[in-house]
Amino acid sequence: MSTSSHSYPMSSGEDQHSYIHNSSYQKAGINGVEERIKQAILEKLDLQLNSSISNFTIADFGCSIGPNTFHAVQSIIDTVKFQHLKQNNETNIVPLEFQVFFNDQSNNDFNKLFKTRPLSSECQYFLAGVPGSFYGRVLPRNSIHIGHTSYTNHWLSKVPEHVCNRESPAWNKNYIQCNNLIEEVTKAYKVQFIKDMEVFLEARAEELVHGGLMIVIGQCLPDGVPLYETWQGHVVETIGDCLMDMAKTGITSEEKIELFSFPVYFPQFSELKRTIEENGSFMIEMIETISHPFENMRLTNEFITSMFRAFLTTMIEQHFGNGVVDELFNRLAQKLSKHPIDFEMWKTQVVYYVVLKRK
Amino acid sequence: MSTSSHSYPMSSGEDQHSYIHNSSYQKAGINGVEERIKQAILEKLDLQLNSSISNFTIADFGCSIGPNTFHAVQSIIDTVKFQHLKQNNETNIVPLEFQVFFNDQSNNDFNKLFKTRPLSSECQYFLAGVPGSFYGRVLPRNSIHIGHTSYTNHWLSKVPEHVCNRESPAWNKNYIQCNNLIEEVTKAYKVQFIKDMEVFLEARAEELVHGGLMIVIGQCLPDGVPLYETWQGHVVETIGDCLMDMAKTGITSEEKIELFSFPVYFPQFSELKRTIEENGSFMIEMIETISHPFENMRLTNEFITSMFRAFLTTMIEQHFGNGVVDELFNRLAQKLSKHPIDFEMWKTQVVYYVVLKRK
Repeated sequence: MSTSSHSYPMSSGEDQHSYIHNSSYQKAGINGVEERIKQAILEKLDLQLNSSISNFTIADFGCSIGPNTFHAVQSIIDTVKFQHLKQNNETNIVPLEFQVFFNDQSNNDFNKLFKTRPLSSECQYFLAGVPGSFYGRVLPRNSIHIGHTSYTNHWLSKVPEHVCNRESPAWNKNYIQCNNLIEEVTKAYKVQFIKDMEVFLEARAEELVHGGLMIVIGQCLPDGVPLYETWQGHVVETIGDCLMDMAKTGITSEEKIELFSFPVYFPQFSELKRTIEENGSFMIEMIETISHPFENMRLTNEFITSMFRAFLTTMIEQHFGNGVVDELFNRLAQKLSKHPIDFEMWKTQVVYYVVLKRK
Repeated sequence: MSTSSHSYPMSSGEDQHSYIHNSSYQKAGINGVEERIKQAILEKLDLQLNSSISNFTIADFGCSIGPNTFHAVQSIIDTVKFQHLKQNNETNIVPLEFQVFFNDQSNNDFNKLFKTRPLSSECQYFLAGVPGSFYGRVLPRNSIHIGHTSYTNHWLSKVPEHVCNRESPAWNKNYIQCNNLIEEVTKAYKVQFIKDMEVFLEARAEELVHGGLMIVIGQCLPDGVPLYETWQGHVVETIGDCLMDMAKTGITSEEKIELFSFPVYFPQFSELKRTIEENGSFMIEMIETISHPFENMRLTNEFITSMFRAFLTTMIEQHFGNGVVDELFNRLAQKLSKHPIDFEMWKTQVVYYVVLKRK
């Protein structure tokens, strides 16, 4: 796998394997923190929301193809409208107009995104699609009042160098993720994560107005927990095992697997916190974690297989070719069926939510 | 054909029949007025382009999938930059940032548009795609400095009522366009055109900042010239003849043709002028026509067939089904080959260009 910058959109289309139908785990994570985010907006947003602002701009970075992005945006709009009415206790105030920028990589399916947007009769905002990597500027300076991103910052801008190099101490062997088993690999991923996060926050700092809020939601590891101890890490390890089985039958090769590693990194919470604290452009208004709302639910094997398939398909196809994915996830389903995940035994990731205010 | 609001994007894809490869006629029209538009911007744009504006916003309404839209936008940006430097005769001024909104119907191929945009190293602006009919608001109020539209306003929001109704005096018989042969039909189309143009200008008036410029480029008929006397009208009549021939062989039916009429209207210049003058939100800074730069060129039959195919395919497919288009344009090519267009004999449309300033 090349270590240059790539992008891997969520599975498109509307079939059973698409992200549109397999993003309820992410949605539950977002829903779990929704009320806290609303509260933070009500408490922290102070943009003199009187006559001086008539257009309110929101951007969702890494929006994918819905439906989560539309829900998140609507929730923000409802909250800002409420706040606007409260701060302008007059009957004749001009209602705010909202413009929402939906950003994702250029190869995201924007046609699909536009097709699945709320009906124009319900849509209370002007919508715009913005193609381009959020690890860089995508919007004019000083133009956004609230930025939002959820379940995106574990995607690195690239696979860390050396991770797919047999000669390097940071070689990830035939593991396909940063599972925290090899210290040098973890270090390489961590360096890339910190660098990417810095670039992300610098770009957002330029795009947000002073006093604007940046909301960041995602999953991370609890402090002291390596990924290989979590059930999420275990599922990806199992996918790696399936690939190795497929290499034995000649469908793919061990060499090909050794050249592959996901550009995905889940930091521990304190790592994430430190990275954000080091940024000088934002004040941290809130940075917390909650358990994922599904933590105490027994996820079915089918749900788990579908969720990881929608998340990982594009990357796997790009490296291993089109013919591999069906076989791979059939094998995953079989393995999970033979050895169901004992959720009591495995640790789990947590949902973090961060509200930053532009200085 | 239903008379409700529809949209018919230009032929997508990148094959020989696509709009991307068959829009050079439109491009030549736009190029023909480019210098005049640049001059108008230099003379009329007075937005106190000093430190008070740091982001300059441009919108292209009805952008289709390129390449013409990118060229038009770049030309505007170059001119505004030049003006900005001239008006701010300092060495240390902060460069303007540009944001460009590319608007077209929701079923326009925005993925293709984004894919064919200038390389990020050359692209001097932040790009956003805005889906939605320009016969209505698509952007927040007071948010655009220069609006642009070219070769779009002959597209009506719908086929005028009664035109496809056998019982109506405005029935267009088996003609497939408003060729100006039937007075009642012309009237119905004209009423729709005026209504659409009013809606278009009202929406743009809300979206543009005060002092902002709206540039409108397109083709119209010279005063006193009906469409049936022009070679462009003649080509579409010939397409109608081909359809009637196909009805005789059973590929389509005369009834189907009677229910079809293009939602396209080319006004005479004075009609267009009057419609724009009646709008109260804009001052007319410039409204003129030029001959199309290709007027004295002998267009080949192949060029003409390809141009009309890219322009009309989507509409024809939606009404007559997928299988008809190849056959239809093969027949057009044959007819043109047997009876080449005598450009000396036919009259022709002219290119109009309008520069409006928001009051």
